[in-house]
Amino acid sequence: MTPMINTLYLPELREMLANNDTQGLKEFCEALHHPYQTAEFMEGLTAKECWDVLRCADMSDRVDIFLYLPWEKQVEMFETGDPKEAGEFIAFLPPDDRVDLLNELPDEISERIMQMTPEEDRHDIQRLSQYDENTVGAIMTTAVAKITENLTPREAVEAAKKQAEEMETIYYLYVVDEEDHLRGLLTFRELICSLGKPDIKVSDIMERNLITIKPTEDREEASMLVAKYDVLALPVVDDEYHLIGIITHDDVMDVVLDEAEEDAQIAAGVSPLEDDYLDSPIHTIVWKRGMWLVILFIGAFLTAFTLNSYDEQLSKCIWLVIFVPMIVSAGGNSGNQSATLVITSLTNGSIHPYDVLKVLRREILIGLSLGCILGLVGIVYSLGYSSVNPGVPWYQVCVILPTTLILVVLCGSVIGAMLPLFFSKIGLDPALMSNPFVAGIIDVMGLVIYLHVAFFFLPGLH
Amino acid sequence: MTPMINTLYLPELREMLANNDTQGLKEFCEALHHPYQTAEFMEGLTAKECWDVLRCADMSDRVDIFLYLPWEKQVEMFETGDPKEAGEFIAFLPPDDRVDLLNELPDEISERIMQMTPEEDRHDIQRLSQYDENTVGAIMTTAVAKITENLTPREAVEAAKKQAEEMETIYYLYVVDEEDHLRGLLTFRELICSLGKPDIKVSDIMERNLITIKPTEDREEASMLVAKYDVLALPVVDDEYHLIGIITHDDVMDVVLDEAEEDAQIAAGVSPLEDDYLDSPIHTIVWKRGMWLVILFIGAFLTAFTLNSYDEQLSKCIWLVIFVPMIVSAGGNSGNQSATLVITSLTNGSIHPYDVLKVLRREILIGLSLGCILGLVGIVYSLGYSSVNPGVPWYQVCVILPTTLILVVLCGSVIGAMLPLFFSKIGLDPALMSNPFVAGIIDVMGLVIYLHVAFFFLPGLH
Repeated sequence: MTPMINTLYLPELREMLANNDTQGLKEFCEALHHPYQTAEFMEGLTAKECWDVLRCADMSDRVDIFLYLPWEKQVEMFETGDPKEAGEFIAFLPPDDRVDLLNELPDEISERIMQMTPEEDRHDIQRLSQYDENTVGAIMTTAVAKITENLTPREAVEAAKKQAEEMETIYYLYVVDEEDHLRGLLTFRELICSLGKPDIKVSDIMERNLITIKPTEDREEASMLVAKYDVLALPVVDDEYHLIGIITHDDVMDVVLDEAEEDAQIAAGVSPLEDDYLDSPIHTIVWKRGMWLVILFIGAFLTAFTLNSYDEQLSKCIWLVIFVPMIVSAGGNSGNQSATLVITSLTNGSIHPYDVLKVLRREILIGLSLGCILGLVGIVYSLGYSSVNPGVPWYQVCVILPTTLILVVLCGSVIGAMLPLFFSKIGLDPALMSNPFVAGIIDVMGLVIYLHVAFFFLPGLH
Repeated sequence: MTPMINTLYLPELREMLANNDTQGLKEFCEALHHPYQTAEFMEGLTAKECWDVLRCADMSDRVDIFLYLPWEKQVEMFETGDPKEAGEFIAFLPPDDRVDLLNELPDEISERIMQMTPEEDRHDIQRLSQYDENTVGAIMTTAVAKITENLTPREAVEAAKKQAEEMETIYYLYVVDEEDHLRGLLTFRELICSLGKPDIKVSDIMERNLITIKPTEDREEASMLVAKYDVLALPVVDDEYHLIGIITHDDVMDVVLDEAEEDAQIAAGVSPLEDDYLDSPIHTIVWKRGMWLVILFIGAFLTAFTLNSYDEQLSKCIWLVIFVPMIVSAGGNSGNQSATLVITSLTNGSIHPYDVLKVLRREILIGLSLGCILGLVGIVYSLGYSSVNPGVPWYQVCVILPTTLILVVLCGSVIGAMLPLFFSKIGLDPALMSNPFVAGIIDVMGLVIYLHVAFFFLPGLH
């Protein structure tokens, strides 16, 4: 767990800044284990002070430390910094990060910075910014180590060495022709093993059949491929099989963590937040939650409608009402369980939409078993309840409550499992549509079942 | 998305097996893009047939393909295979995978296999098996590429080359002394850049300040470190700083995916399943769900208890009952939203347990806003309801319903946000304890609020 803003070095840093102690600041930037830690100690500084400290460091340290500063601080530094300095600095940032950064800035600031950016980098930025937020293109980097197939292993090592400073990974060397068509992949491991073998070319040892992805595909698709094939990076190619970028394992890790968070929020009926909870404006959170609360609330009105249609019978038999929330929640809980099991299995690929009959059979068995268990607890309740409420017909309570519980839990389990499968089949994100709706639908269903069971065993009410 | 069991090559495979066509089978094992795909085509084979096919492949292909077979098939192959063949084969499997495999087998079978395993590997297996399931030790691998600090870059490349076949990654070379104490790390990137520089030793270019982890720590801690520092691997050291293994980025990816699934299941009140949904025995699922359903059901009995204490008043005013499930669900939904936002923020580290006041202030504002929004919808409902139910005092409905909604949503939001923080503070997993309990507590609270608001505005009922 990260500590609160770390103020340990803050006084020293401020003193060095005041004394213009360039050497001291440079040493600070180089001294710590990892740029992450240097960045952590700088969290208490203002955006301007951050520029002043970083200016003293070598460019590679400067980039590393900057990338580990909190996202809001990075944005603030670019918003308030000198456009010329920012424009020159941005040329050294990884292609994917700088696009994200520029997208976050107000248009006039990002334009001013872009004017100060070297032409080649500017083109690269423009090319990457065209991809939508959740696509492969938006998370890929264009800094790919490339070699040609006629090199010897020794020449390939030299070529990699030249690119080592700038590229995100040099452990996968992509083999391309003169027009940048992807021809193959040479892992550094393979390359090292072939060093010293005479008369060997890259084309003899490269892997030709590669798993690739298009820049317009969903970033989740890319992360699934990386997880499945355990690769360090995935090449991104266009329709003509030009190599235009790679997705690296650390980008994928961020995607996986992001998506898990989004799925959890969606399952709770919150439209995923773009920023951290504490950094999101109140009105944004109210909008992202309120939208769903209102939709679910309108759905819940169906329960009121249902109860209202039976109000005469209910007023004759008020003890029925006592158990309504309990029964509704038992159905909701079992439905939520099934929905979540099916959604997580769809996500990890262990269930497919066409497994519907297998899932149905299992959920009927599971729902019946769970219903019987709750039914047994229900009988104990009923006996207890009747004993302290002598006016209530105990034998009827003891039949109505367990019967209802069995049916409600059974239907809850089955509906909870089927809805995500159905949504997945018609091409909607099961996570998006299932949990909150499942709860609403099962609430109404639970009520209808309860009332019908009750009226069946209490014929006098009709 | 993976297809159903792929039967495309099944007839050919079976024919080759029948004809004892070793050469054909060997070619099949080598032909496809990636061992994952070869494994996919073998899914339809029995465990014995899998052995027969793999036996024809080179050992390195054999291992790769085997590791991509479904987990159940791997276990079945070891359960039913010849212990001698299994014991010899296991020596070639990665150290972490083979321990998982042996742990899954019945004791007498794993012992018989262990007797056939080369002594060195047997010791390694015994050492790794001592770690608990969710620790770093259980997912680390002992196959680490090691070098000593007095080597020149060229000698280091040679040393790496020798280890390239067996090690999980050679891109991080760990520098150790004669007693295996971890002294530093040399990335292959750094090594390549130093090739050709004269008079340089590994000790001059290695990174000395490393982020390390203990084998007894939580595997989630390791995955957070890898995600945070964007490293390929994390060295695992014991108390004396001996290098005993590494955690690689692909192991971490599996942990992250696993944990996300577990958290989702916990949030829905299901004890995490160890196997896939379709592979888990029905009674296991019933147990893992039933346990929670019963706990939540017993909690929900409080709602019945609450309603029962007001049954006289309710029977005088049956229209109050109509809105019970609607109000309870509004509170539950808003509480669930807050709880999930706080839990995901605790997980990603953007909220800390001591942020309680900040969160409280935000949730009061958010809860009030959301309450007012639902309150407005509630007024529309009330007017609609009263117009079709002329017997009901409309001005009272129009006051009671919105007032209740504001209070219920406010309290739901605040309690939903505070409970996970509280659990986290006292050292319990917030995900484990929060969502299902939040729902139960808020249900009861919603009822109490509703009834008290109602009785306040309907003094005749008391």
